[in-house]
Amino acid sequence: MINHSKARAYTNIALIKYWGKRDESLILPMNSSLSMTLDRYFTETEVSVDPILSNDQILIDQNTIDVISHHNLVRFLNLIREMSGNPYFAKVESINRVPTAAGFASSASGYAALALAASSAYGLKLTPKELSILARRGSGSASRSIFGGFVLWHRGQLINGEDSYSESLIDEVYEWPIEVISAVVSTDKKSISSRMGMKQTVETSPLYKGWLESVDSDIMRAIHAIKAKDFTSLGEVVEHNALKMHATMMSAWPSVIYFTSGTLEIINLVQRMRQEGIEAYFTIDAGPNVKILCQKSDTGKVKNALIQLSAVQSVEICSLGKGASLIE
Amino acid sequence: MINHSKARAYTNIALIKYWGKRDESLILPMNSSLSMTLDRYFTETEVSVDPILSNDQILIDQNTIDVISHHNLVRFLNLIREMSGNPYFAKVESINRVPTAAGFASSASGYAALALAASSAYGLKLTPKELSILARRGSGSASRSIFGGFVLWHRGQLINGEDSYSESLIDEVYEWPIEVISAVVSTDKKSISSRMGMKQTVETSPLYKGWLESVDSDIMRAIHAIKAKDFTSLGEVVEHNALKMHATMMSAWPSVIYFTSGTLEIINLVQRMRQEGIEAYFTIDAGPNVKILCQKSDTGKVKNALIQLSAVQSVEICSLGKGASLIE
Repeated sequence: MINHSKARAYTNIALIKYWGKRDESLILPMNSSLSMTLDRYFTETEVSVDPILSNDQILIDQNTIDVISHHNLVRFLNLIREMSGNPYFAKVESINRVPTAAGFASSASGYAALALAASSAYGLKLTPKELSILARRGSGSASRSIFGGFVLWHRGQLINGEDSYSESLIDEVYEWPIEVISAVVSTDKKSISSRMGMKQTVETSPLYKGWLESVDSDIMRAIHAIKAKDFTSLGEVVEHNALKMHATMMSAWPSVIYFTSGTLEIINLVQRMRQEGIEAYFTIDAGPNVKILCQKSDTGKVKNALIQLSAVQSVEICSLGKGASLIE
Repeated sequence: MINHSKARAYTNIALIKYWGKRDESLILPMNSSLSMTLDRYFTETEVSVDPILSNDQILIDQNTIDVISHHNLVRFLNLIREMSGNPYFAKVESINRVPTAAGFASSASGYAALALAASSAYGLKLTPKELSILARRGSGSASRSIFGGFVLWHRGQLINGEDSYSESLIDEVYEWPIEVISAVVSTDKKSISSRMGMKQTVETSPLYKGWLESVDSDIMRAIHAIKAKDFTSLGEVVEHNALKMHATMMSAWPSVIYFTSGTLEIINLVQRMRQEGIEAYFTIDAGPNVKILCQKSDTGKVKNALIQLSAVQSVEICSLGKGASLIE
């Protein structure tokens, strides 16, 4: 008998960033983080557990991938097989609706969708918290994409990672017209992977300790701002937090610099817009592209200013999105 | 009787940076710093102490300046009058051979030349160490321009600043064919003054403590590299130190960002050149322009690469220079 399940999960953007692991293998973070799940970009993954298969078969965007060079995916499926006691191989078909050109990584939505579809197909009945812990084992930020809206990923203290999970910050349906504009300046592969960049920063930056010590208070400020719907306060702590993370990276040796000239042009533009009274704040992940947080009433103005920069290749707009769910 | 003296002092570039004051009024730094005095850009200042004058007269580049809006200069002369017991006013004629377009500030050479010329004209017999303490009162970095070659400015511990002075690192005539290429991307007035930028960083950056704790070991590494003429080791610590300083600024709130898109283009270029085997390292002061440190045998290659960037307005080359001296 073939058991199959299909799930969809959306990307998220960290407002208070995750940077550095305390355990590489379990993907346990050095600090808690806070994100906003987005509504436009998602991954849909179908998992079929089939006793006939003699190996996992993985198709991403309809192309069969080599399971040896993607051993992380197989390791993730092994974990689920171990948890479920079901030893059979699976066929995994994943479609990424997260175009590289939109400036978002697909690892968060990818592992969140896979965690949900695979755990269901293997017959596991996981709570959202357990699902978040499972998704984390694939990619740290995937633990957050299990939930919709604003999401807090607890760092946790335990060495087995059982208290390092995400949760939704606002339980009820939450209406707040804030939007995220993704401004893409490059779709090239980044010069240094997040994994390596984190490791290098933790090991060599004399400023990393200061970063870690300041994150918890950023999270408290962000939660307070979200609950009070205080956009200015949220925007300020989001931008400051991103700058602190990039500052910490930049002070590693060799230096980890994800900014390019295009990144700086957008930073300068956003700061100039604020001086002119337009409330926009930026955040930047481990790459050169910039996400701008603004209120819906300002999105048009901010977008128009951005597309006038020659460095900006494309601009996409997202709102608050939903958590991962089974479909069909 | 008119007493007059004329002095020349050169600019310097900090290799290990000074960022943050522990005393604003006495200009006492939070950390020690290390610089290289340059050979091309200088200020020449003539001071004539004249009993007939009823006010200080100050001419900069042959233009009489308003002494009320330049009260720092008058305060500096008052200090020298107090030290000397000579109450007369002075005529000060200063010529800056530090073109804005060369990307260097003129405050270091300016106050070093003024300290030497004015102390001499007022009849003070100061040792180089005392002169360095005096120049510091005008501008922190001026304390370093009293000396030639590689110079160490001791932070000091005393609250009166008497142990916060510079000294030459290498006493004998020192030959090392290293050069500094100044790459100018903007000659606009900077968005935030060094004084304000320092204050904001010290008061608000959670990473500032990490910066401070790391400077002394950078200085030890730089001194060791200079004494061993180990260019790679010097270049690495110089570039890392500059990045740490800018990282610390960037993590202030509001953020202090001196980088522009042009700055980032040069940073990326220098790092690329190193991957191709050309030993070049950058350092950046509180502004968007970049100084590149390289060995004389590589200067031509580095210069050629720099002038191909459209963001680079001009390129100037300096070598090790001499300390301040009386002339004529």
